[in-house]
This record gives sequence, structure tokens and C-alpha cells, in this order.
Amino acid sequence: MEEEQKKKEKKKKEQGPLRRILITVAYDGTNYHGFQKQNSGAVTIEGVLNDTLTNVFKEPIEVIGASRTDTGVHAYGNLAVFDTHSRIEAEKVPYALNRSLPEDIRVLCGEEVPLDFHPRKCDTIKTYEYRIYNAPFNLPQKRLYSYWTYAKLDVEKMQRATGYFIGTHDFASFCSAGTQTPTTVRTLYELTVETDDPFDSEDDPEAPVCRDIVIRVSGSGFLYNMVRIIAGTLMEVGKGRIEPEQIADIIEARDREAAGPTAPPEGLTLVGYEITGKA
Amino acid sequence: MEEEQKKKEKKKKEQGPLRRILITVAYDGTNYHGFQKQNSGAVTIEGVLNDTLTNVFKEPIEVIGASRTDTGVHAYGNLAVFDTHSRIEAEKVPYALNRSLPEDIRVLCGEEVPLDFHPRKCDTIKTYEYRIYNAPFNLPQKRLYSYWTYAKLDVEKMQRATGYFIGTHDFASFCSAGTQTPTTVRTLYELTVETDDPFDSEDDPEAPVCRDIVIRVSGSGFLYNMVRIIAGTLMEVGKGRIEPEQIADIIEARDREAAGPTAPPEGLTLVGYEITGKA
Repeated sequence: MEEEQKKKEKKKKEQGPLRRILITVAYDGTNYHGFQKQNSGAVTIEGVLNDTLTNVFKEPIEVIGASRTDTGVHAYGNLAVFDTHSRIEAEKVPYALNRSLPEDIRVLCGEEVPLDFHPRKCDTIKTYEYRIYNAPFNLPQKRLYSYWTYAKLDVEKMQRATGYFIGTHDFASFCSAGTQTPTTVRTLYELTVETDDPFDSEDDPEAPVCRDIVIRVSGSGFLYNMVRIIAGTLMEVGKGRIEPEQIADIIEARDREAAGPTAPPEGLTLVGYEITGKA
Repeated sequence: MEEEQKKKEKKKKEQGPLRRILITVAYDGTNYHGFQKQNSGAVTIEGVLNDTLTNVFKEPIEVIGASRTDTGVHAYGNLAVFDTHSRIEAEKVPYALNRSLPEDIRVLCGEEVPLDFHPRKCDTIKTYEYRIYNAPFNLPQKRLYSYWTYAKLDVEKMQRATGYFIGTHDFASFCSAGTQTPTTVRTLYELTVETDDPFDSEDDPEAPVCRDIVIRVSGSGFLYNMVRIIAGTLMEVGKGRIEPEQIADIIEARDREAAGPTAPPEGLTLVGYEITGKA
């Protein structure tokens, strides 16, 4: 009993004023049911972060995440904040957490932010990457972080299609049906398609290719499944089923049915955030 | 009974003369106890290939592998041969097998070879890659295929050390103790160390790095654990514990104790073989 009392007093001394810490989180989403905590008991990134923080700091902690990535989607730099009475230096937080986190989640950075900083209520530029492995057979070492297709994609056509997406548009055609959102207008700053083995019209069209194709997109924000629907639509362009010029009409349609399919989650990685200001 | 008889006759008709097929096999070694079949019942690449081939071709098949990679070691292009009475075109073999193989093993190529072709008894140039992720924290997406170290490695020093390895030497210092082999003399044709973020003496030496370092080595053959001991020794050079010039003495010593530690398996990938002739 006395021991218990001493411990409590010691803890009180160690505690400081409430502070908000912003962490950058990388994860392999393969074995998680997405970022967001679920009541079903399914394992999520948020759930593991909450449990680990609560254990490490010995106080009940719940993070607020910037992006609720879907099941199987990866991140190099998702953001989350949490509040703590601990006096730990923010820069030491990654070391403290990484010792206890499973190896498919890593905290790469920690910094103190004002208590009213909210990662979903500030102006940001968000960047995603969609990786495609385009080869006759999948490569085991790429299977977890790329979407594999043997259909030879015309990268040059995909590149020509990107221009139509740039700027501020109503992206209702690129939002999963039934999503509740005040507006489907979003701004895309950049959309590129790159490959380590570009299509060359002088090459034998029957010759197999073994290449990575990376779609990279930056914007002010994204609708539900928007990046995966853009990737799925660009792949339809690469297969010759949609012409680059048709993208303008697809956007104009404001109809999910007009766009291509939602590309599978394993190819998608949330690359990171640039915080540009408070909303 | 009649059905059974018909089936047998049909199978006989389908069967042709015995042929030997050479396959190129890629795998993620994370979940395997190495290539070689084990009596313990541990899951191995060879065991899975034998089971899959036997099921697909409906005749008992055992492969002969070129390289018996260790537990946790990966391959882009290990080689194996098997004999079959099936009339399947060699080029179709990957399609037939990949449908049944687990997704961490893929057959990338099939070709017919003479019945006396033995993948361990022909002259080859073998290439390995050892990948290091050099950063303050591991990245979940790299953890399975790179060895992570936060110790900032001096890549320029590692590069200077490579020259001492090239050529024909007695590599006894780079062979796990107790290995039975007629000779510990081997020939290395190439050894390179590359990084996407080279060391620059003008950079702040305290600034953290986030980079990939890739050691690539080609040779006529390798002793047991040789590439991993070379990688472990080069990392000691990168840490400043061994000077590049000392490599000559380490080779000269012909003593496993003289070299650095055996680097962990996850960084190692058997890249491939070039068959240069029959032994």
C-alpha cells in the first residue's frame, strides 16, 4: 500500500502540464484494418498507437490521426497528435515508442504543437503514391507494396491524361458512391506518372515488360477512395479503354459510374503532409 | 474401374519422353527455412516447389536447386531443374506453376535443357545483393528486404575496401567455421557499394541520414555465408572499426575470426545466375 502511494507521488512529480505532441507515423498496412479504431476489435493502426502510448506513458492516451487510411493502405508519413502530462522531450518520443511498437509501425518524428492544433483542421498539401508493378509475373518482393498487372500499360497515354485532373474540380466521379461530404470539390496541385522503363513505340509491342510505374498525386485533400479511383482510371487509359481526352468528360459527368474501377489498396501509400497553415 | 482405366490410358497418351526443365525462381525468404528440403518438416522453398510440381504434373517430381539459400534469404533468380514426362511447353511452365504456388514464390521463366544439365555442376557467374537501410529508424516497408542500421556508415570508405576482394583469393576468413569444402579459393569479379545519398565530408556529421546502401557482388561461387560475412566486414569498415587497407590482411589471415560478423539474412538477395559453360 505504501509502495503504491509512493509510486503515485513519484508519478505526480514526474508529470508536467498537458502538452500536445505531433508524430509522423510510417506503417505497412498489410496486416491492419486501416488506420481508424474500430469497435469490432479489428486491429487498426490507431488502436495499436493508443495501446502503446497508454502503456509507455502510463496515462490513458488517444491519438487524433490526420488521415484514416483504408485497410491494406500504407504510409510513410501519416500524422497524429496526442496529449500527455509526461515531461519527455518531443524529439525523444519516437525512441520511446518504437521500442514497444510492432515492427510494421514506426514513429519517425515527434514535435510539440499548440494544444489547439488539430491535424484534420489545418491547411495541408497531402501527397500519395500509387505503385504498379507491370510484368508478366508478380515479384514476391514487390507484392505487398505494389499492385501487379501483366496488362502492358501505355505510360505515355497515362501521362497525357494527368493534365485534365490538375486544378480545382468537382471530383464527384472520383468518390466512392454513398460518401457523405459537404462538398466534392477538391484541388489537385500535381499528378505525375513515372516509370523506370518507358513505353517506346519502336519497341516490339509483344515483348514483355518488367517495370515499376508510379503515380504520384498532391492535393489540398482527397475524397473517399479518390486516389485509388484516379489510379484505376489511369490504368484504364494505359490499357487503351479510355482515351486521355475523355478524362475531361468523366470529371464533368460528376458520376462515379463514369470513372474507372477503384484500384486495389496494396499499391497505395500516403507519402506525407506539408502543413501550410491553420484552416 | 473402367473410368480409372481410361484415365490411365489418357495419361499415358499425354505423357512424352522424359525432359529436363530449367526454371528461374524468385522468392521472399521471410517465411521459409531456406531453400533446401529438410527432414524436420520445416517449410522450405524446395519442399514447396516439389509439392507444387508433383500436384500440377501428377507425377512425383523433385527439383535440383542451384543455390541452397539460408533461412530468411531472398532470391530474384535462383535456378532449379526438374524432370517430367509432361508434354507442356517449357515456356508455359511458369503459368502452370504460379497458379498453385504461394504468392511469396514465383517462377519467372522456364526452358528445356539437356537431361545431363546440373545447375550446381556448370560454370556460372552468380550475383548477390546485400541491402542496408541506414537511417535513425527502420521503415516498415523496408524491414523485410533490407538490414537496418542507425549507425551512419562511411560509404566512401566501404567503396575503398572493395578493391581488396576482387580476384582469386583464399576466402577462408569469409567462410563460416566448420564448413566442409574441398577448397576455400574463389574468384570475385565485381564488388560495388552504392547509395542514393552519398557521404559528403562537407555535410554536418551529426545530421541524420535516410538512405539505401546496396552491396553487389559477382563471383564464380561463394563459400557458406561468404556474402553475409563480406557485408558484415564492409559495415565494420563503414563504422570505422576496420580500415579499408586492413582487408588485405584479413584475407591473408585465412581465419574466420579476422573478418567482421555475419550480416543478418534479411538484407541478402540472390539476384541471379549467368551460365557461362559446363564444368
